[in-house]
Amino acid sequence: MQELKVVFVGFGTVGRGCARYLAANRRHLESSHGLRCKVVAITDLKAGWVENREGIGLAAAIDAVDRGGRLSELPLDRPEGRSSIEVIKASKADVLVESTWTNLKDGEPGLSHIIAALESGMDVVTSNKGPLALAFRRLKAIAKDTRRQLRFESTVMSGSPVFSMCEAGLAGARILRIRGILNGTTNYILTEMAAGKSYAQALRCAQELGYAEADPTGDVEGYDPAAKIAILANALMGADEPYAGVNRVGITSIRTEDIERAACESKRIKLIASASKSPDGRVELSVRPALIPETDILAHVSGIMNALQITTDAQPDVTIIGPGAGGDSAGYGLVNDLVSIHHGRLSS
Amino acid sequence: MQELKVVFVGFGTVGRGCARYLAANRRHLESSHGLRCKVVAITDLKAGWVENREGIGLAAAIDAVDRGGRLSELPLDRPEGRSSIEVIKASKADVLVESTWTNLKDGEPGLSHIIAALESGMDVVTSNKGPLALAFRRLKAIAKDTRRQLRFESTVMSGSPVFSMCEAGLAGARILRIRGILNGTTNYILTEMAAGKSYAQALRCAQELGYAEADPTGDVEGYDPAAKIAILANALMGADEPYAGVNRVGITSIRTEDIERAACESKRIKLIASASKSPDGRVELSVRPALIPETDILAHVSGIMNALQITTDAQPDVTIIGPGAGGDSAGYGLVNDLVSIHHGRLSS
Repeated sequence: MQELKVVFVGFGTVGRGCARYLAANRRHLESSHGLRCKVVAITDLKAGWVENREGIGLAAAIDAVDRGGRLSELPLDRPEGRSSIEVIKASKADVLVESTWTNLKDGEPGLSHIIAALESGMDVVTSNKGPLALAFRRLKAIAKDTRRQLRFESTVMSGSPVFSMCEAGLAGARILRIRGILNGTTNYILTEMAAGKSYAQALRCAQELGYAEADPTGDVEGYDPAAKIAILANALMGADEPYAGVNRVGITSIRTEDIERAACESKRIKLIASASKSPDGRVELSVRPALIPETDILAHVSGIMNALQITTDAQPDVTIIGPGAGGDSAGYGLVNDLVSIHHGRLSS
Repeated sequence: MQELKVVFVGFGTVGRGCARYLAANRRHLESSHGLRCKVVAITDLKAGWVENREGIGLAAAIDAVDRGGRLSELPLDRPEGRSSIEVIKASKADVLVESTWTNLKDGEPGLSHIIAALESGMDVVTSNKGPLALAFRRLKAIAKDTRRQLRFESTVMSGSPVFSMCEAGLAGARILRIRGILNGTTNYILTEMAAGKSYAQALRCAQELGYAEADPTGDVEGYDPAAKIAILANALMGADEPYAGVNRVGITSIRTEDIERAACESKRIKLIASASKSPDGRVELSVRPALIPETDILAHVSGIMNALQITTDAQPDVTIIGPGAGGDSAGYGLVNDLVSIHHGRLSS
């Protein structure tokens, strides 16, 4: 039995989703994978922080934050005034679970958290798209130099195992193209528009259901799927393309008439993210609305579901369809990364 | 650089598909995975056999058999009259690539090939459904006792990475149910019937296109998907269910009227293989035609494509769609298994 000491930075929906799965499946992870996780510190911008070398009771921590309380109410060691970087370094953990918010301007504060952890000798799992979309090469280089593992399954399609599938299941093959539906909010809006709603109505429904934020720019202008296709291309196709280089068009100019005309031609409008290798070896990245014929399986990926289709030199396309969002799903993706990290540590 | 000595038993479409990929991607496998494969023996019921401790030139071997010739025409060592078991044992290989034909009566000759290899200290990769469907537990026990690896990605959905995805990407989660379209021939026939053909016409087209054999019983009566769902349930859900225990109904009694009635209800008829955990922990296996509403992504998996949907305790369903047949795809699946075996050997 290997014990992994874990520090959580970010304890919002995704961080708690991960913690909840760890708490509920403690015995299963021990018996099936020989993995025991001991959470030694948790820090969150809103909920404060807590640490305990002997292990923090996850149920109490989750419950406190679920109720809108603070971690510092827990009866545990809590020296005052530490920054999240100080908490990471003081934790002496084996693994950082990073799930702070995505910032596509400069990747902070996640970028600094990840670097601090790697440089302190920790492995890192993260659901945070910002650092990976903006500094993929830099982070991989630091992980290589420090001989640490960095995993990020939840950054794309939530807990759907996109990276794991390609890494383990398409090994030896060359990925020539990837394309997919990588944003649940816009796919929900386009699905509702195809069912008759206007853009404004569909957006309002998405906001009421919690799929879209009050300011929906990151989704409807395509920034979120642009970050995801950049991460995919860098991780799976050996690209060195910055997020800023994604040719990006959102869905705000799509009108009901466009969708009706597409339907007459047995097509659907979908926001498609794609990365293709050009003959000169460069990888071209784009996010833009496209007319998808009903004979294409992507036409039938509806609502908040996401999908990714992978073209290789080895066989016909493989498509994975699964959840694209949700705290439980993204939280589970972090758990799966922890299991991978655990196996990696055993074999290194 | 690790050199794997490989013996091929079976050098039909799938075996040659694997060999072709290895030959064409030698440098890529070396540079990306540090893997070099040296084929030291090949034996095939029709094409004869050949061995060479220094390595057999794959291009010449593939070419000879492609042209309908025999392996024994190659200018290499070829002592007379050896059985395939003798070839395996004499090869002193590290890995057996087993791709002889599927026999769902007693699993032979593949079953004996696999056991002989494991007991001689070889790892095994196979595309042969018979041994896994009939003797899963026994083979896993032998592999465990001999501390050897046994991989079988190509037995289900050809080279689509079903087992790799679940193993690497759904680790820690419990698989509660799997369901899917696991036979390309019947899915092609049902797709053509939905487009207006009779069962007899659709079957004839499938035979002309090479999707169905002259005796189509194994496909249209559901024996093939029954073998696959048994392998899946045993490998992924901890079941101990024999292939004979699959509740199996084929597609031969489906009439054009049934399909037309389904269409009127916005449904499609699909041959669905499924495995579900019942509350008492048993896994129930079935293959039978089912009415699938058009809101279900499986309704849109057409022609010879296959799909598998996985329900876990961790997140909403994940679906993988990909090729279900084809020598190149199944051959690539064997290559992917070889890469996994290689990584497993490095870390053990």
